Amino acid sequence: MSKSIPISPPSPRATLKRAPDRGHYDRETVYAILDEGLVAHLGVVVDGAPRVIPFVYARIDDDLYLHGSTGNRVLRALRDGAPGCLTVTHIDGLVLARSAFHHSVNYRSVVAHGAGVEVTDPEERKRALDATVDQVANGRAKDVRPPNDEELRRTMVVRMSLAEASAKMRSGEPIEDPDDLGLPHWAGVLPMRQAFGEPTGDSLLQHDIDVPGYLVDYSRTEG
Amino acid sequence: MSKSIPISPPSPRATLKRAPDRGHYDRETVYAILDEGLVAHLGVVVDGAPRVIPFVYARIDDDLYLHGSTGNRVLRALRDGAPGCLTVTHIDGLVLARSAFHHSVNYRSVVAHGAGVEVTDPEERKRALDATVDQVANGRAKDVRPPNDEELRRTMVVRMSLAEASAKMRSGEPIEDPDDLGLPHWAGVLPMRQAFGEPTGDSLLQHDIDVPGYLVDYSRTEG
Repeated sequence: MSKSIPISPPSPRATLKRAPDRGHYDRETVYAILDEGLVAHLGVVVDGAPRVIPFVYARIDDDLYLHGSTGNRVLRALRDGAPGCLTVTHIDGLVLARSAFHHSVNYRSVVAHGAGVEVTDPEERKRALDATVDQVANGRAKDVRPPNDEELRRTMVVRMSLAEASAKMRSGEPIEDPDDLGLPHWAGVLPMRQAFGEPTGDSLLQHDIDVPGYLVDYSRTEG
Repeated sequence: MSKSIPISPPSPRATLKRAPDRGHYDRETVYAILDEGLVAHLGVVVDGAPRVIPFVYARIDDDLYLHGSTGNRVLRALRDGAPGCLTVTHIDGLVLARSAFHHSVNYRSVVAHGAGVEVTDPEERKRALDATVDQVANGRAKDVRPPNDEELRRTMVVRMSLAEASAKMRSGEPIEDPDDLGLPHWAGVLPMRQAFGEPTGDSLLQHDIDVPGYLVDYSRTEG
Protein backbone atom coordinates (compact mmCIF):
# COMPACT_ATOMS: atom_id res chain seq x y z
CA MET A 1 0.00 0.00 0.00
CA SER A 2 2.99 2.31 0.28
CA LYS A 3 2.48 3.68 -3.22
CA SER A 4 -1.22 4.16 -2.80
CA ILE A 5 -2.80 7.54 -3.32
CA PRO A 6 -5.62 8.36 -0.97
CA ILE A 7 -8.74 9.49 -2.81
CA SER A 8 -9.14 12.15 -0.16
CA PRO A 9 -8.51 12.48 3.55
CA PRO A 10 -11.33 10.45 5.05
CA SER A 11 -14.37 12.56 5.91
CA PRO A 12 -16.01 11.84 9.28
CA ARG A 13 -18.73 9.67 7.76
CA ALA A 14 -16.25 7.81 5.57
CA THR A 15 -14.16 6.90 8.61
CA LEU A 16 -14.77 3.46 9.98
CA LYS A 17 -15.90 3.36 13.57
CA ARG A 18 -16.10 -0.42 13.84
CA ALA A 19 -13.01 -2.52 13.16
CA PRO A 20 -11.00 0.49 11.94
CA ASP A 21 -8.05 -1.83 11.18
CA ARG A 22 -10.10 -3.22 8.29
CA GLY A 23 -10.45 0.16 6.56
CA HIS A 24 -8.62 1.26 3.41
CA TYR A 25 -8.82 4.61 1.68
CA ASP A 26 -6.37 4.22 -1.20
CA ARG A 27 -7.46 4.46 -4.81
CA GLU A 28 -6.08 1.11 -5.98
CA THR A 29 -8.05 -0.81 -3.38
CA VAL A 30 -11.28 1.11 -3.97
CA TYR A 31 -10.93 0.86 -7.77
CA ALA A 32 -10.17 -2.86 -7.74
CA ILE A 33 -13.26 -3.68 -5.68
CA LEU A 34 -15.51 -1.48 -7.80
CA ASP A 35 -14.13 -2.72 -11.12
CA GLU A 36 -14.66 -6.36 -10.17
CA GLY A 37 -18.24 -5.64 -9.16
CA LEU A 38 -21.38 -5.83 -11.27
CA VAL A 39 -24.09 -4.53 -9.01
CA ALA A 40 -24.02 -1.80 -6.37
CA HIS A 41 -26.64 -1.27 -3.69
CA LEU A 42 -27.63 2.39 -3.71
CA GLY A 43 -29.39 3.84 -0.69
CA VAL A 44 -31.29 7.12 -0.98
CA VAL A 45 -34.00 8.60 1.21
CA VAL A 46 -37.32 8.89 -0.63
CA ASP A 47 -40.41 10.20 1.22
CA GLY A 48 -38.57 10.08 4.54
CA ALA A 49 -37.40 6.48 4.41
CA PRO A 50 -34.32 4.89 2.90
CA ARG A 51 -34.62 2.74 -0.18
CA VAL A 52 -31.84 0.33 -1.10
CA ILE A 53 -31.91 -0.76 -4.72
CA PRO A 54 -29.42 -2.77 -6.80
CA PHE A 55 -27.94 -0.93 -9.78
CA VAL A 56 -25.50 -1.82 -12.52
CA TYR A 57 -22.87 0.91 -12.62
CA ALA A 58 -19.65 2.05 -14.24
CA ARG A 59 -16.56 3.74 -12.88
CA ILE A 60 -14.58 6.32 -14.86
CA ASP A 61 -11.63 7.69 -12.89
CA ASP A 62 -13.00 9.03 -9.60
CA ASP A 63 -16.65 9.00 -10.62
CA LEU A 64 -19.36 6.38 -10.58
CA TYR A 65 -22.16 6.47 -13.10
CA LEU A 66 -25.64 5.12 -12.57
CA HIS A 67 -28.42 5.11 -15.11
CA GLY A 68 -32.06 4.25 -15.28
CA SER A 69 -35.42 5.30 -16.55
CA THR A 70 -36.16 9.01 -16.27
CA GLY A 71 -38.99 7.95 -13.93
CA ASN A 72 -36.75 6.05 -11.50
CA ARG A 73 -37.57 7.53 -8.09
CA VAL A 74 -34.34 6.57 -6.38
CA LEU A 75 -32.19 8.08 -9.15
CA ARG A 76 -34.40 11.17 -9.29
CA ALA A 77 -34.02 11.71 -5.55
CA LEU A 78 -30.26 11.34 -5.83
CA ARG A 79 -30.18 13.78 -8.73
CA ASP A 80 -32.36 16.23 -6.81
CA GLY A 81 -29.84 16.45 -3.98
CA ALA A 82 -30.73 13.67 -1.56
CA PRO A 83 -27.53 12.24 -0.09
CA GLY A 84 -26.72 8.77 -1.41
CA CYS A 85 -24.74 5.82 -0.16
CA LEU A 86 -23.53 3.29 -2.67
CA THR A 87 -22.09 -0.03 -1.54
CA VAL A 88 -20.40 -2.81 -3.52
CA THR A 89 -19.65 -6.05 -1.67
CA HIS A 90 -17.75 -9.20 -2.68
CA ILE A 91 -18.05 -12.23 -0.44
CA ASP A 92 -14.87 -14.31 -0.63
CA GLY A 93 -15.50 -16.97 1.98
CA LEU A 94 -17.38 -18.21 5.00
CA VAL A 95 -15.26 -18.13 8.15
CA LEU A 96 -16.20 -20.86 10.61
CA ALA A 97 -14.67 -20.53 14.05
CA ARG A 98 -14.88 -22.97 16.96
CA SER A 99 -17.21 -20.50 18.72
CA ALA A 100 -20.45 -19.09 17.31
CA PHE A 101 -19.27 -15.61 18.31
CA HIS A 102 -16.17 -15.63 16.10
CA HIS A 103 -17.97 -16.75 12.94
CA SER A 104 -17.41 -14.26 10.18
CA VAL A 105 -17.28 -13.71 6.44
CA ASN A 106 -14.30 -12.85 4.27
CA TYR A 107 -15.31 -9.91 2.14
CA ARG A 108 -14.21 -6.79 0.31
CA SER A 109 -16.55 -3.82 0.19
CA VAL A 110 -16.59 -0.20 -0.88
CA VAL A 111 -18.95 2.35 0.61
CA ALA A 112 -19.24 5.70 -1.18
CA HIS A 113 -21.18 8.64 0.24
CA GLY A 114 -22.23 11.63 -1.79
CA ALA A 115 -24.79 13.49 -3.79
CA GLY A 116 -25.63 12.83 -7.42
CA VAL A 117 -25.40 15.12 -10.42
CA GLU A 118 -27.45 14.49 -13.54
CA VAL A 119 -25.22 14.17 -16.58
CA THR A 120 -26.59 16.20 -19.48
CA ASP A 121 -23.55 16.57 -21.73
CA PRO A 122 -24.12 14.19 -24.66
CA GLU A 123 -20.48 13.12 -24.83
CA GLU A 124 -20.27 12.36 -21.11
CA ARG A 125 -23.58 10.47 -21.29
CA LYS A 126 -22.21 8.38 -24.14
CA ARG A 127 -18.97 7.65 -22.26
CA ALA A 128 -20.91 6.67 -19.15
CA LEU A 129 -23.32 4.36 -20.99
CA ASP A 130 -20.49 2.76 -22.99
CA ALA A 131 -18.54 2.24 -19.77
CA THR A 132 -21.60 0.63 -18.19
CA VAL A 133 -21.91 -1.87 -21.03
CA ASP A 134 -18.16 -2.53 -20.81
CA GLN A 135 -18.38 -2.95 -17.03
CA VAL A 136 -20.67 -5.91 -17.74
CA ALA A 137 -18.52 -7.35 -20.55
CA ASN A 138 -15.32 -5.55 -21.49
CA GLY A 139 -15.42 -4.89 -25.24
CA ARG A 140 -19.16 -5.17 -25.60
CA ALA A 141 -19.81 -1.42 -26.08
CA LYS A 142 -18.24 -1.58 -29.56
CA ASP A 143 -20.25 -4.68 -30.44
CA VAL A 144 -23.84 -3.47 -30.01
CA ARG A 145 -26.25 -1.04 -31.60
CA PRO A 146 -25.68 2.21 -29.69
CA PRO A 147 -28.64 3.97 -28.08
CA ASN A 148 -30.84 5.95 -30.46
CA ASP A 149 -32.34 9.36 -29.67
CA GLU A 150 -35.56 7.97 -28.23
CA GLU A 151 -33.68 5.53 -25.96
CA LEU A 152 -31.40 8.35 -24.80
CA ARG A 153 -34.40 10.55 -24.03
CA ARG A 154 -35.79 7.82 -21.78
CA THR A 155 -32.49 7.33 -19.91
CA MET A 156 -31.22 9.36 -16.98
CA VAL A 157 -27.50 9.24 -16.18
CA VAL A 158 -26.35 10.32 -12.73
CA ARG A 159 -22.74 10.83 -11.62
CA MET A 160 -21.60 10.30 -8.07
CA SER A 161 -18.12 11.23 -6.92
CA LEU A 162 -15.83 8.75 -5.19
CA ALA A 163 -14.34 11.52 -3.06
CA GLU A 164 -15.95 10.04 0.04
CA ALA A 165 -15.31 6.38 -0.67
CA SER A 166 -13.63 3.85 1.54
CA ALA A 167 -12.94 0.15 1.34
CA LYS A 168 -13.21 -2.43 4.05
CA MET A 169 -12.13 -6.04 3.91
CA ARG A 170 -11.49 -9.18 5.88
CA SER A 171 -9.47 -12.16 4.76
CA GLY A 172 -7.86 -15.22 6.26
CA GLU A 173 -8.55 -17.66 9.04
CA PRO A 174 -10.99 -17.37 11.90
CA ILE A 175 -9.93 -15.44 14.96
CA GLU A 176 -10.17 -17.79 17.92
CA ASP A 177 -10.38 -17.45 21.64
CA PRO A 178 -7.30 -19.42 22.83
CA ASP A 179 -9.47 -21.35 25.28
CA ASP A 180 -11.47 -22.76 22.34
CA LEU A 181 -8.57 -24.34 20.46
CA GLY A 182 -9.00 -27.73 22.11
CA LEU A 183 -12.70 -28.00 21.24
CA PRO A 184 -13.73 -30.81 18.88
CA HIS A 185 -15.22 -28.49 16.21
CA TRP A 186 -13.88 -28.09 12.69
CA ALA A 187 -12.70 -24.54 11.97
CA GLY A 188 -11.53 -22.88 8.79
CA VAL A 189 -12.75 -21.15 5.66
CA LEU A 190 -15.11 -22.17 2.87
CA PRO A 191 -13.96 -20.16 -0.18
CA MET A 192 -16.66 -18.53 -2.27
CA ARG A 193 -16.68 -16.71 -5.59
CA GLN A 194 -18.85 -15.71 -8.54
CA ALA A 195 -18.81 -18.38 -11.25
CA PHE A 196 -19.95 -18.01 -14.84
CA GLY A 197 -21.43 -20.66 -17.11
CA GLU A 198 -21.32 -21.06 -20.86
CA PRO A 199 -22.77 -18.19 -22.88
CA THR A 200 -26.19 -19.24 -24.18
CA GLY A 201 -27.25 -17.62 -27.43
CA ASP A 202 -30.85 -16.51 -27.60
CA SER A 203 -33.48 -18.36 -29.61
CA LEU A 204 -33.29 -15.85 -32.48
CA LEU A 205 -29.50 -15.87 -32.85
CA GLN A 206 -28.24 -16.23 -36.39
CA HIS A 207 -26.20 -19.41 -36.81
CA ASP A 208 -23.14 -17.69 -38.23
CA ILE A 209 -22.60 -15.43 -35.20
CA ASP A 210 -19.99 -16.85 -32.84
CA VAL A 211 -19.68 -16.21 -29.14
CA PRO A 212 -17.53 -13.08 -28.90
CA GLY A 213 -14.05 -13.30 -27.38
CA TYR A 214 -14.96 -11.14 -24.40
CA LEU A 215 -17.43 -13.82 -23.27
CA VAL A 216 -15.09 -16.80 -23.72
CA ASP A 217 -13.63 -17.89 -20.35
CA TYR A 218 -15.32 -14.85 -18.88
CA SER A 219 -13.92 -13.73 -15.57
CA ARG A 220 -14.13 -10.56 -13.52
CA THR A 221 -10.95 -11.06 -11.56
CA GLU A 222 -8.34 -10.86 -14.34
CA GLY A 223 -7.29 -8.02 -16.57
CA MET B 1 -48.13 -18.80 -7.68
CA SER B 2 -51.79 -19.65 -7.29
CA LYS B 3 -51.19 -21.24 -3.88
CA SER B 4 -49.09 -18.42 -2.61
CA ILE B 5 -50.00 -16.52 0.52
CA PRO B 6 -49.31 -12.82 0.38
CA ILE B 7 -47.27 -11.63 3.35
CA SER B 8 -49.53 -8.63 3.47
CA PRO B 9 -51.36 -6.42 1.02
CA PRO B 10 -48.56 -4.36 -0.51
CA SER B 11 -48.05 -1.04 1.25
CA PRO B 12 -47.52 1.98 -0.98
CA ARG B 13 -43.73 1.92 -0.55
CA ALA B 14 -43.60 -1.85 -1.09
CA THR B 15 -45.39 -1.50 -4.40
CA LEU B 16 -43.17 -1.50 -7.43
CA LYS B 17 -43.44 1.58 -9.56
CA ARG B 18 -40.94 0.49 -12.20
CA ALA B 19 -41.54 -2.74 -14.10
CA PRO B 20 -44.50 -3.74 -11.94
CA ASP B 21 -44.81 -7.00 -13.88
CA ARG B 22 -41.60 -8.14 -12.19
CA GLY B 23 -43.01 -7.80 -8.67
CA HIS B 24 -43.99 -10.66 -6.36
CA TYR B 25 -45.47 -10.43 -2.91
CA ASP B 26 -46.00 -14.06 -2.01
CA ARG B 27 -44.28 -15.69 0.95
CA GLU B 28 -42.69 -18.60 -0.92
CA THR B 29 -40.90 -16.30 -3.34
CA VAL B 30 -39.71 -13.90 -0.65
CA TYR B 31 -38.61 -16.74 1.65
CA ALA B 32 -36.72 -18.60 -1.08
CA ILE B 33 -34.69 -15.54 -2.06
CA LEU B 34 -33.89 -14.67 1.55
CA ASP B 35 -33.01 -18.24 2.53
CA GLU B 36 -30.59 -18.62 -0.36
CA GLY B 37 -28.87 -15.35 0.56
CA LEU B 38 -25.93 -14.81 2.85
CA VAL B 39 -25.58 -11.06 3.03
CA ALA B 40 -28.22 -8.32 3.04
CA HIS B 41 -27.58 -4.66 2.40
CA LEU B 42 -29.25 -2.66 5.16
CA GLY B 43 -29.91 1.03 4.63
CA VAL B 44 -30.62 3.28 7.60
CA VAL B 45 -30.37 7.05 7.95
CA VAL B 46 -27.68 8.08 10.43
CA ASP B 47 -26.95 11.78 11.02
CA GLY B 48 -29.19 12.76 8.11
CA ALA B 49 -27.64 10.58 5.43
CA PRO B 50 -28.29 6.99 4.43
CA ARG B 51 -25.72 4.33 5.17
CA VAL B 52 -25.82 1.03 3.32
CA ILE B 53 -23.92 -1.74 5.09
CA PRO B 54 -23.71 -5.49 4.37
CA PHE B 55 -24.99 -7.75 7.15
CA VAL B 56 -25.24 -11.47 7.66
CA TYR B 57 -28.80 -12.23 8.72
CA ALA B 58 -31.28 -14.95 9.56
CA ARG B 59 -34.94 -15.43 8.80
CA ILE B 60 -37.37 -17.06 11.22
CA ASP B 61 -40.93 -17.15 9.90
CA ASP B 62 -41.87 -13.56 8.97
CA ASP B 63 -38.99 -11.91 10.78
CA LEU B 64 -35.43 -11.11 9.87
CA TYR B 65 -32.75 -10.94 12.52
CA LEU B 66 -29.63 -8.83 12.35
CA HIS B 67 -26.90 -8.73 14.93
CA GLY B 68 -23.75 -6.82 15.63
CA SER B 69 -21.71 -5.09 18.22
CA THR B 70 -23.67 -3.04 20.74
CA GLY B 71 -21.76 -0.05 19.34
CA ASN B 72 -22.84 -0.59 15.72
CA ARG B 73 -24.30 2.76 14.67
CA VAL B 74 -26.48 1.45 11.86
CA LEU B 75 -28.06 -1.22 14.05
CA ARG B 76 -28.48 1.26 16.89
CA ALA B 77 -30.26 3.71 14.61
CA LEU B 78 -32.55 0.94 13.35
CA ARG B 79 -33.28 -0.13 16.93
CA ASP B 80 -33.94 3.48 17.95
CA GLY B 81 -36.72 3.83 15.39
CA ALA B 82 -35.07 4.96 12.17
CA PRO B 83 -36.83 3.34 9.22
CA GLY B 84 -34.74 0.65 7.56
CA CYS B 85 -34.59 -0.89 4.13
CA LEU B 86 -33.01 -4.29 3.77
CA THR B 87 -32.23 -5.71 0.33
CA VAL B 88 -30.97 -9.15 -0.71
CA THR B 89 -29.97 -9.62 -4.35
CA HIS B 90 -28.95 -12.68 -6.34
CA ILE B 91 -27.47 -12.15 -9.80
CA ASP B 92 -28.27 -15.10 -12.05
CA GLY B 93 -26.94 -13.95 -15.39
CA LEU B 94 -25.77 -11.19 -17.68
CA VAL B 95 -28.28 -10.43 -20.42
CA LEU B 96 -26.64 -9.20 -23.61
CA ALA B 97 -28.99 -7.77 -26.20
CA ARG B 98 -28.18 -6.61 -29.73
CA SER B 99 -28.70 -3.02 -28.56
CA ALA B 100 -26.93 -1.32 -25.64
CA PHE B 101 -30.31 -0.14 -24.36
CA HIS B 102 -31.75 -3.62 -23.85
CA HIS B 103 -28.80 -4.98 -21.91
CA SER B 104 -29.93 -6.26 -18.55
CA VAL B 105 -29.21 -8.62 -15.69
CA ASN B 106 -31.15 -11.66 -14.58
CA TYR B 107 -31.69 -11.33 -10.86
CA ARG B 108 -33.89 -12.11 -7.89
CA SER B 109 -34.15 -9.56 -5.10
CA VAL B 110 -36.13 -8.89 -1.96
CA VAL B 111 -36.61 -5.42 -0.53
CA ALA B 112 -38.01 -5.17 3.02
CA HIS B 113 -39.00 -1.87 4.61
CA GLY B 114 -39.58 -1.43 8.31
CA ALA B 115 -38.38 -0.42 11.71
CA GLY B 116 -36.24 -2.54 13.98
CA VAL B 117 -36.94 -3.83 17.47
CA GLU B 118 -34.14 -4.81 19.80
CA VAL B 119 -34.52 -8.39 20.96
CA THR B 120 -33.96 -8.69 24.71
CA ASP B 121 -35.61 -12.01 25.53
CA PRO B 122 -32.75 -14.48 26.10
CA GLU B 123 -34.55 -17.34 24.37
CA GLU B 124 -35.36 -15.29 21.28
CA ARG B 125 -31.80 -13.97 21.16
CA LYS B 126 -30.49 -17.54 21.29
CA ARG B 127 -32.86 -18.66 18.53
CA ALA B 128 -31.86 -15.70 16.36
CA LEU B 129 -28.11 -16.23 16.82
CA ASP B 130 -28.41 -19.98 16.23
CA ALA B 131 -30.44 -19.29 13.09
CA THR B 132 -27.76 -16.87 11.90
CA VAL B 133 -25.03 -19.49 12.26
CA ASP B 134 -27.28 -22.00 10.51
CA GLN B 135 -28.05 -19.50 7.74
CA VAL B 136 -24.32 -19.59 6.95
CA ALA B 137 -24.01 -23.38 7.22
CA ASN B 138 -27.08 -25.42 8.06
CA GLY B 139 -26.27 -27.61 11.07
CA ARG B 140 -23.38 -25.52 12.31
CA ALA B 141 -25.21 -24.02 15.32
CA LYS B 142 -25.10 -27.43 17.09
CA ASP B 143 -21.41 -27.86 16.25
CA VAL B 144 -19.83 -24.79 17.89
CA ARG B 145 -19.24 -23.40 21.33
CA PRO B 146 -22.33 -21.28 22.03
CA PRO B 147 -21.93 -17.63 23.03
CA ASN B 148 -20.94 -17.06 26.65
CA ASP B 149 -22.35 -14.30 28.86
CA GLU B 150 -19.67 -11.78 27.97
CA GLU B 151 -20.11 -12.38 24.22
CA LEU B 152 -23.87 -12.04 24.59
CA ARG B 153 -23.46 -8.75 26.48
CA ARG B 154 -21.44 -7.38 23.57
CA THR B 155 -24.01 -8.46 20.94
CA MET B 156 -27.11 -6.56 19.90
CA VAL B 157 -29.88 -8.50 18.11
CA VAL B 158 -32.45 -6.55 16.13
CA ARG B 159 -35.62 -7.95 14.60
CA MET B 160 -37.20 -6.53 11.49
CA SER B 161 -40.58 -7.66 10.23
CA LEU B 162 -41.10 -8.93 6.70
CA ALA B 163 -44.61 -7.42 6.63
CA GLU B 164 -43.48 -4.87 4.04
CA ALA B 165 -41.34 -7.13 1.88
CA SER B 166 -41.57 -7.70 -1.82
CA ALA B 167 -39.59 -9.65 -4.37
CA LYS B 168 -38.59 -8.63 -7.84
CA MET B 169 -36.95 -10.76 -10.50
CA ARG B 170 -35.99 -11.05 -14.11
CA SER B 171 -35.11 -14.22 -15.98
CA GLY B 172 -34.72 -15.39 -19.53
CA GLU B 173 -33.53 -14.00 -22.81
CA PRO B 174 -32.92 -10.40 -23.80
CA ILE B 175 -35.86 -8.34 -24.90
CA GLU B 176 -35.12 -7.10 -28.41
CA ASP B 177 -36.36 -4.37 -30.63
CA PRO B 178 -37.60 -6.31 -33.70
CA ASP B 179 -35.59 -3.99 -35.97
CA ASP B 180 -32.38 -5.17 -34.29
CA LEU B 181 -32.78 -8.88 -34.98
CA GLY B 182 -30.80 -8.77 -38.21
CA LEU B 183 -27.79 -7.05 -36.64
CA PRO B 184 -24.51 -9.00 -36.60
CA HIS B 185 -24.14 -8.95 -32.78
CA TRP B 186 -24.22 -12.00 -30.54
CA ALA B 187 -27.11 -11.93 -28.07
CA GLY B 188 -27.99 -14.17 -25.19
CA VAL B 189 -27.31 -14.84 -21.53
CA LEU B 190 -24.12 -15.54 -19.58
CA PRO B 191 -25.27 -17.56 -16.54
CA MET B 192 -23.80 -16.61 -13.18
CA ARG B 193 -23.91 -18.12 -9.70
CA GLN B 194 -22.13 -18.31 -6.37
CA ALA B 195 -19.57 -21.13 -6.33
CA PHE B 196 -17.91 -22.65 -3.29
CA GLY B 197 -14.45 -24.18 -3.05
CA GLU B 198 -13.09 -26.90 -0.81
CA PRO B 199 -13.30 -26.24 2.92
CA THR B 200 -9.84 -25.28 4.17
CA GLY B 201 -9.14 -26.15 7.80
CA ASP B 202 -7.29 -23.52 9.78
CA SER B 203 -3.64 -23.86 10.75
CA LEU B 204 -4.50 -24.95 14.29
CA LEU B 205 -7.00 -27.64 13.33
CA GLN B 206 -6.51 -30.96 15.10
CA HIS B 207 -5.76 -33.74 12.64
CA ASP B 208 -8.56 -36.03 13.77
CA ILE B 209 -11.34 -33.53 13.05
CA ASP B 210 -12.99 -34.18 9.67
CA VAL B 211 -14.77 -31.66 7.50
CA PRO B 212 -18.37 -31.72 8.77
CA GLY B 213 -21.10 -33.04 6.51
CA TYR B 214 -22.81 -29.66 6.21
CA LEU B 215 -19.72 -28.32 4.42
CA VAL B 216 -19.27 -31.25 2.00
CA ASP B 217 -20.65 -30.34 -1.46
CA TYR B 218 -21.90 -27.13 0.11
CA SER B 219 -24.62 -25.41 -1.84
CA ARG B 220 -27.17 -22.74 -1.04
CA THR B 221 -29.69 -23.69 -3.68
CA GLU B 222 -30.75 -27.15 -2.45
CA GLY B 223 -32.71 -28.21 0.62
